[in-house]
Amino acid sequence: LSGGVPASDRVEQILGGSVLLAARLMRDLDDHVPSAVRELKQLFPHTGRAYVVGVTGNPGSGKSTLVDSLIGRYRARGLRVGVVAIDPSSPFSGGAILGDRIRMQRHATDEGVFIRSLATRGHLGGLSRSTQDVVAVMDAMGYDLILVETVGVGQDEVDVVSTADTSVVVVVPGLGDEIQAIKAGILEIADILCVNKADKDGADRTVADLSMMLELRDRTAKPVRILKTVGVREEGIDELVAAVDAHRQELVTRPEGAQRARARAELRLFELLRSQLLARAEALIASGEGLAVLTDRIARRELDPYTAAEQIVGALVR
Amino acid sequence: LSGGVPASDRVEQILGGSVLLAARLMRDLDDHVPSAVRELKQLFPHTGRAYVVGVTGNPGSGKSTLVDSLIGRYRARGLRVGVVAIDPSSPFSGGAILGDRIRMQRHATDEGVFIRSLATRGHLGGLSRSTQDVVAVMDAMGYDLILVETVGVGQDEVDVVSTADTSVVVVVPGLGDEIQAIKAGILEIADILCVNKADKDGADRTVADLSMMLELRDRTAKPVRILKTVGVREEGIDELVAAVDAHRQELVTRPEGAQRARARAELRLFELLRSQLLARAEALIASGEGLAVLTDRIARRELDPYTAAEQIVGALVR
Repeated sequence: LSGGVPASDRVEQILGGSVLLAARLMRDLDDHVPSAVRELKQLFPHTGRAYVVGVTGNPGSGKSTLVDSLIGRYRARGLRVGVVAIDPSSPFSGGAILGDRIRMQRHATDEGVFIRSLATRGHLGGLSRSTQDVVAVMDAMGYDLILVETVGVGQDEVDVVSTADTSVVVVVPGLGDEIQAIKAGILEIADILCVNKADKDGADRTVADLSMMLELRDRTAKPVRILKTVGVREEGIDELVAAVDAHRQELVTRPEGAQRARARAELRLFELLRSQLLARAEALIASGEGLAVLTDRIARRELDPYTAAEQIVGALVR
Repeated sequence: LSGGVPASDRVEQILGGSVLLAARLMRDLDDHVPSAVRELKQLFPHTGRAYVVGVTGNPGSGKSTLVDSLIGRYRARGLRVGVVAIDPSSPFSGGAILGDRIRMQRHATDEGVFIRSLATRGHLGGLSRSTQDVVAVMDAMGYDLILVETVGVGQDEVDVVSTADTSVVVVVPGLGDEIQAIKAGILEIADILCVNKADKDGADRTVADLSMMLELRDRTAKPVRILKTVGVREEGIDELVAAVDAHRQELVTRPEGAQRARARAELRLFELLRSQLLARAEALIASGEGLAVLTDRIARRELDPYTAAEQIVGALVR
């Protein structure tokens, strides 16, 4: 499965910069190969140096273009950049229109950029875990800055972005409904609100609406920066980079920085607990009457799912 | 917590139609009150009669207006209708602009309609479970048709919709990015693709694009209906109702119908297992060094989360 390279060798080569072996490890982690988890444990002491920036927004908000610009700026600073794309419409995930994909190729041949895309579907609660695994591998490899691009709806995606060091939420002007969605939760996770496509009608109105929402929050709420960009013309990118820098500086002095590290550790731990405990439950069901028989009984209302779950937990747990 | 009414009494009164006590039970279930779970078990044998229709789409796709129209049509047939709204921008969730909310009031005073909204945030993987609980209570109360409205992105939301008897995916014309997102997964869960706001430019193109995508699928893939609606003018609603009816008829004759019931039972079971097992793990951590100390050690890289999770699972499981 791992191309014949022993685990410890592979870890050494990944730490030495092998993108090929790192990509194989990421795939093995996704496939739950036990040796891959052992290797990730060996990489873990080398993590904790990368700075993680989450970029989220609805499909069509232009966040991929912003991510593309950010890669360029950070590369110009001499930083090595990792990109995790978990947006099905992102060119980084291979889901974009042809023009976008060609534009991205300039980074594909840059050895200082490591791009990894993750599918948003079929992860059943594991999207966040996969992302954290990929971030950990890139971090251990010495990528200085890791950009995580995701669509901004769904608990999984929110989890991913909320545990980034800096969270950028991208919105576009004139979408009343989008503002509603932001109201409902996205606002809480944003460190930077980026009104992209700001050359469109209603950009100033959107900025004003967002500012008002921020002012209505609790006085103790964290500061949130609002800025305007026109991604396709690279306008406002310097300001976006400066806002990320400023937030990063703040984290050093505010208790929030350490809190985020703990929140990320907690999310990670519970995701691992969830997958391991459910795997044990599945094995127990399989060794008994089997999942098909059990779900059939529930579907026919012979057994209620609450009692079924309690019985399985009772048999499994000490 | 339950207003002084003993559990069995409350179950009787809920089965007798008390919306007030049903709403209290739903709230207690959300708060994980143990007696509420016992009551839900008592309601379970009365479930399995309601037909569940999922309606999903991006914010701004107009799905709330379609849901509103569907309520009217089913009420006109004399059916009792339950609505579960888990879209932050939905007027049913209280998140809409004033005009929408006033329009919805006609159903708020109709005793044949039971509307319950659920927050999309802060559920940490429990959104689907909460939805299934609410659907079960409405089902036991004799609501004939239950409409579940949700935003169409995020695994949790996809789970909710994919276990409905009929899944309606609402799209709007001219959004290339939206089509991309559909490509990535939503298409697989749709029984009916509803191109809403079909009076806008590009509606026929969107229908053509979707039709082509459907034709490119495996020959054994399930049939999917495509139709056009203009929700605000109630155009195409009869066709939408007819499409739901036709799909419902098909389910009776196709093996898919029983498969869905089993898939729903499985999703339910695993959600309950997940929450119960994680609660046990949390209790174990709390009785030991405590979560704050543990996550701090992980954040400081003294302990890797994989080893931590394995140790907890090892201590917890027989």
